[in-house]
Amino acid sequence: MNRILVIPFFLLWQGVSAQSIPPVKLVNYVKPFIGTSAVDTTSLSGSNFPGPTTPFAFVQLSPDTRDAPDDPASGYDYNDKTIVGFSHTHLSGTGVADLFDVLLMPTTGEVKLNPGNAKISRSGYRSAFSHGQETARPGYYQVMLQDYGINAELTSASHTGMHRYTFPASTQSHIVIDMDHSLDKKRGYWECRIIAGEIKVINNHTIEGYRIITGWARLRKVYFHAEFSKPFDSVVMANGKQKPYATTLLNGTALKAALNFSTTDHEQVTVKVALSSVSIENAKQNMMAEIPGWDFDKISSQNADEWEKELSKIIIEGTQEQKEIFYTGLYHAFTQPNNIADINGDYQATDMTIRNAPDKVQYSTFSLWDTYRAAHPLYTLIQPEKTAGFINTMIRQYETYGYLPIWQLWGDENYCMIGNHAIPVITDAILKGIPGIDVEKAYQAVKASSTTDHPGSPFTAWEKYGYIPEDIESQSVSITVEMAYDDWCVAQLAKKLGKTADYERFIKRSAFYKNLYNAKTGFFQARNKDGNWLTPFDPLSYGGNGGSPYTEANAWQYSWYVPQNIPDLIKLMGGDRSFTAKLDTFFTLANKPGDINGNASGFIGQYAHGNEPSHHIAYLYDYAGQPWKTQYYVSKVLNELYNNSSSGYAGNEDCGQMSAWYIFSSMGFYPVNPANGIYAIGSPILKSASMTLSNDKIFSMSVKNIGKQNIYIQSVKLNGKLYNKTYITQDDIMNGSNLEFTMGAKPNKSWGTKAEDQPPLWGYKN
Amino acid sequence: MNRILVIPFFLLWQGVSAQSIPPVKLVNYVKPFIGTSAVDTTSLSGSNFPGPTTPFAFVQLSPDTRDAPDDPASGYDYNDKTIVGFSHTHLSGTGVADLFDVLLMPTTGEVKLNPGNAKISRSGYRSAFSHGQETARPGYYQVMLQDYGINAELTSASHTGMHRYTFPASTQSHIVIDMDHSLDKKRGYWECRIIAGEIKVINNHTIEGYRIITGWARLRKVYFHAEFSKPFDSVVMANGKQKPYATTLLNGTALKAALNFSTTDHEQVTVKVALSSVSIENAKQNMMAEIPGWDFDKISSQNADEWEKELSKIIIEGTQEQKEIFYTGLYHAFTQPNNIADINGDYQATDMTIRNAPDKVQYSTFSLWDTYRAAHPLYTLIQPEKTAGFINTMIRQYETYGYLPIWQLWGDENYCMIGNHAIPVITDAILKGIPGIDVEKAYQAVKASSTTDHPGSPFTAWEKYGYIPEDIESQSVSITVEMAYDDWCVAQLAKKLGKTADYERFIKRSAFYKNLYNAKTGFFQARNKDGNWLTPFDPLSYGGNGGSPYTEANAWQYSWYVPQNIPDLIKLMGGDRSFTAKLDTFFTLANKPGDINGNASGFIGQYAHGNEPSHHIAYLYDYAGQPWKTQYYVSKVLNELYNNSSSGYAGNEDCGQMSAWYIFSSMGFYPVNPANGIYAIGSPILKSASMTLSNDKIFSMSVKNIGKQNIYIQSVKLNGKLYNKTYITQDDIMNGSNLEFTMGAKPNKSWGTKAEDQPPLWGYKN
Repeated sequence: MNRILVIPFFLLWQGVSAQSIPPVKLVNYVKPFIGTSAVDTTSLSGSNFPGPTTPFAFVQLSPDTRDAPDDPASGYDYNDKTIVGFSHTHLSGTGVADLFDVLLMPTTGEVKLNPGNAKISRSGYRSAFSHGQETARPGYYQVMLQDYGINAELTSASHTGMHRYTFPASTQSHIVIDMDHSLDKKRGYWECRIIAGEIKVINNHTIEGYRIITGWARLRKVYFHAEFSKPFDSVVMANGKQKPYATTLLNGTALKAALNFSTTDHEQVTVKVALSSVSIENAKQNMMAEIPGWDFDKISSQNADEWEKELSKIIIEGTQEQKEIFYTGLYHAFTQPNNIADINGDYQATDMTIRNAPDKVQYSTFSLWDTYRAAHPLYTLIQPEKTAGFINTMIRQYETYGYLPIWQLWGDENYCMIGNHAIPVITDAILKGIPGIDVEKAYQAVKASSTTDHPGSPFTAWEKYGYIPEDIESQSVSITVEMAYDDWCVAQLAKKLGKTADYERFIKRSAFYKNLYNAKTGFFQARNKDGNWLTPFDPLSYGGNGGSPYTEANAWQYSWYVPQNIPDLIKLMGGDRSFTAKLDTFFTLANKPGDINGNASGFIGQYAHGNEPSHHIAYLYDYAGQPWKTQYYVSKVLNELYNNSSSGYAGNEDCGQMSAWYIFSSMGFYPVNPANGIYAIGSPILKSASMTLSNDKIFSMSVKNIGKQNIYIQSVKLNGKLYNKTYITQDDIMNGSNLEFTMGAKPNKSWGTKAEDQPPLWGYKN
Repeated sequence: MNRILVIPFFLLWQGVSAQSIPPVKLVNYVKPFIGTSAVDTTSLSGSNFPGPTTPFAFVQLSPDTRDAPDDPASGYDYNDKTIVGFSHTHLSGTGVADLFDVLLMPTTGEVKLNPGNAKISRSGYRSAFSHGQETARPGYYQVMLQDYGINAELTSASHTGMHRYTFPASTQSHIVIDMDHSLDKKRGYWECRIIAGEIKVINNHTIEGYRIITGWARLRKVYFHAEFSKPFDSVVMANGKQKPYATTLLNGTALKAALNFSTTDHEQVTVKVALSSVSIENAKQNMMAEIPGWDFDKISSQNADEWEKELSKIIIEGTQEQKEIFYTGLYHAFTQPNNIADINGDYQATDMTIRNAPDKVQYSTFSLWDTYRAAHPLYTLIQPEKTAGFINTMIRQYETYGYLPIWQLWGDENYCMIGNHAIPVITDAILKGIPGIDVEKAYQAVKASSTTDHPGSPFTAWEKYGYIPEDIESQSVSITVEMAYDDWCVAQLAKKLGKTADYERFIKRSAFYKNLYNAKTGFFQARNKDGNWLTPFDPLSYGGNGGSPYTEANAWQYSWYVPQNIPDLIKLMGGDRSFTAKLDTFFTLANKPGDINGNASGFIGQYAHGNEPSHHIAYLYDYAGQPWKTQYYVSKVLNELYNNSSSGYAGNEDCGQMSAWYIFSSMGFYPVNPANGIYAIGSPILKSASMTLSNDKIFSMSVKNIGKQNIYIQSVKLNGKLYNKTYITQDDIMNGSNLEFTMGAKPNKSWGTKAEDQPPLWGYKN
């Protein structure tokens, strides 16, 4: 025996693994707790949820820490100490709550469907938990329910949630089904009411039911089919404050059921719950297609694999924290819009009819006032197929509703926020050549949505006055500047389709912002029908969602919104020097105490990264010869207003928009005008990134001399050639270019400062 | 020229017509204003509507005199002086309001969609009218709208209403469409709320739209397609208190539109409006199938022809008033249940899914607590095909809801009233051999509805206590006696199907009424769980719909309800003499002032013909050897509590039940137990009647020595043979027997008074 040949096995294995070591999976960087609490009491939670979902899925199964969720709208607050249960649908990052359908909760001991004392929270089955006994990652959530000694694990497929509960030994183990769990029904705001519901025992391991509910979405019908790996011994149910009693069926508006089991120590009960917005039969069909078996770990692993595939569309190098923020951001951006069509394509249309989508997709949750800015431009780059589905959903809404979505939930318009920002989304997608869209039909929808008077969009007054008079429609300044931008998009689409008269009409309207620019104050200000400026005027004074000319912002924040013609805005404000001086003031001026709208947070002076009106503003220095100030403020936001903690966002994550800002900006550029094919250059913080495009080309960026202090661009190379422009174009990206930054701790004021370096109005060749 | 041959033409014509004179059409006896007002302020209106409908139709197009109808539930009160407009759906005879969908109103002058003064009724377009300029007959309604000089005419097909408006010369003629018109939304009782709606201009002669509404029916989706014979010049719309403005589309929850025309004097504009509960496409398809053209008179005539066919199922001789009451009663009995399935069979099921009925019928509006008594027994005799449709609809409700309808509106359960009286309806239909019913499935539904605890039906307590304890469920006496009857029906069905164990279980339950008979007082009285009688007890004290053991009645009225075993009731009450003496008191005892429930009216002592609990009681003397008293009180009700005026009913007409009582009783018999095949003989008031049966045989009755004073039976012949029994059987009717009464002014106390003459428990041979 020759000792020299004796190589310890562990070394041999190490050697092999050193050569073919699998790279760390991208899903490992996703930290679903990011965005689940607020930075401080003046801010909003990211309003994200930690539970599992597949990309763009219907079922988003997550723990709720609130009985009647309102804020955070996700139902989960990282600061809370107890969990009510696990419901199957959630909104991610919104400011308004809804959904929370079909809540399950495992318990032991006495069944407490309704607490005897009405003063106690209605959830008698609530349990304490701690973050030390809680895990969340793509495709998997786990928590120890301390009151019951039950370990709960969750995973999901597109329409189906899967629960694995590990019980202690108990003759009184239960799984509660709560069909009454919803957004706060006492809150008159959305007039939430459950109209009808049913829970039905099909056999000793199958439960079905539904609820019909009006809330933020005016009419949702939620049907479920649930299967249990272990037969239950008995079932009790109650409607409202009824005493629970043994039955196999209950109809009502406040339904709860408890399924009763005897369990041995560590006995696992697995539950599958499939949903449909159309029928119980469809819910069952969805389950059969997605999770016919009982292998929880396999489903969890498949879920993670789906995410791995989506996340790998952008491969980055950076710090651990940057990767966690970036990939969690991508995860949040791909958490919605949600395909709520059944496997067979059935869905509820905007006119509340049941229809069938030929492409089997019907998307819910278009938070367009937020997402048209950067989330949709991100989708057009790396989710072109989804983008076509989004737009086809929007066009179907136009067909049954007369105009495109504003804020769409479950195919229904809730008129949250302002503008008609499906228009830039559609325009961007068509200009970028996304396949699968009927362009003529899309234009018809875009034009109708720009000419048919509807709530928040008084187009007759718009064309009559050349601005929105505040005495016709409140939030008039915000609507005016955003509507002018939407009109610019319509004009571009008209031009592309050779509709000259329409082009002339809408390009004229796209300049209406000028009519609210008060040269005396240097702000966009409101006028009434009579043309007079509204007084008194205080540029620091905040509006909310009505009753003021400004939407969730003040005049300072809304005086920078002319993405379609920034040179003209600069001219209005007196030229480059005056413009940049004003920006300097903007980024340094303190708020008046107590005057801030609750949606504004993440402040740098008047800049409020916690809400969308500010999102493009740091990039405006690029347009006026001071790109190093863009670099300064963009890097400041990236480094200071994002982190990998539960309060990692400066405000509501807003259905992907806050994340998309980070994703673009961390790579060094941002779509200031979301539809002109121009990306303004900021200050990259990633070491490198490569983005796989729909044409299979790879766009890449990289940074030399990276470092936390090195926030200033020294030089840029595009495809190896020195590049002095403060922007890149859509074509640069789609051609698979390489963008190379060299950074330094001091500004290079000669880079990108000439007039010809500044971003132009239009980035396409044609 | 031979003068003798010169016969004047008019004489010739007379001679011919004298021989072949067409009989007066039966529709001419129908007076739709009967039942449109109350007898007095202590009574309820019949709550019928005067507008056109085809038999059992979806669209029932009628004028509404109330803005937010509540009482009368039909929306039309004969005492009112103004009309709001013409809406397309109505309830006939109910105590609760709903429907009133898609209201149209022609006007002239300034468009007044919303009155400027909020204190004024919301219907700015209301007009005065007078009964002198108003006509109603089957298939036709007409009224002169005095404020506008517009003559409005209405007709309808099954899913389509047709309006013909004759305008004066005006440059400001309008047709208002009001999608906000509904039952009183301020009335918290039913929480009526419009969830969504749309009005859309398709072209200058087509309007479409919908509304989604929750009210007495929890969720109704009403889609319409409307076509106008004359193109409109312009359209204005408003949502809520909005100022009307020109638009072609509006979404909202309080929608109104005005279509504007210029009209010449006497210019007619015809409008067709088709409805669907599924989609606009289906509404349009319904219209194309039913009224593709524009011939108003033809549609009106077709509508009347449909009625003529239905009414001719019973041909009677009698006075003009009797014929008017009788045929209007038949008209009201056939006004519902309403087939709300579309032409293609689509309908909304109880679980709010959209399904397709293979037989293309899905019936709405089962007021079963009323109609199981005599209306459904009438349908089983002369509407067997419809009866199968009713029962198949009920079975579908069981399949999606878990139990049979109690009070069903638009496929939805509203739990109005008590009992599970789909059971006697199904039992009666199956025992009578109605084809087209899956008997095993029906039994499954019947048994589930008799064993699954549900609102108002605590069967677990029922079987535990042998009665409904008032401290478990209020209205406990009424529920107990009616539930015992339903159980008797289940038992009969079980027996027929050979389910012996079930028979034993339910026949036992059918005797539970005994457990609430208090021998000390001689009344059915409430007990609590502990078995104690509720005190204090006052047999004159009324209950309403909860909070008392009696439903819309008192102990006097509810102590006669054991139709399944009247001999036992007589025994409980101490035998024939004691029983009839008590009946004598019942029919003569005055009410305590101010104590009467609003649903009780039409009094003869404690007998209240205006509500259903009394309906069988006058016939009970037949069972105790004093049939002449049955004859006395039945003829008294027929002659005194029905007339052909607008207040022709003693209370709500109740979806055909008040009419069915008259139809049976006027022919001389009544189904005291609606499911045992026995009809107790009363006092016929018609000269003759012949009823065409489903087996094409004709059952006939006739009266010798008829006269208003001749209310007493002297003798009876059945098929020519003297007949001494106080009842006939289902077999007698179906064999096409002839029943001949000889009447007189004094009782013949030897007729029908022997024990063997009294109605038995069971009337079938098998």
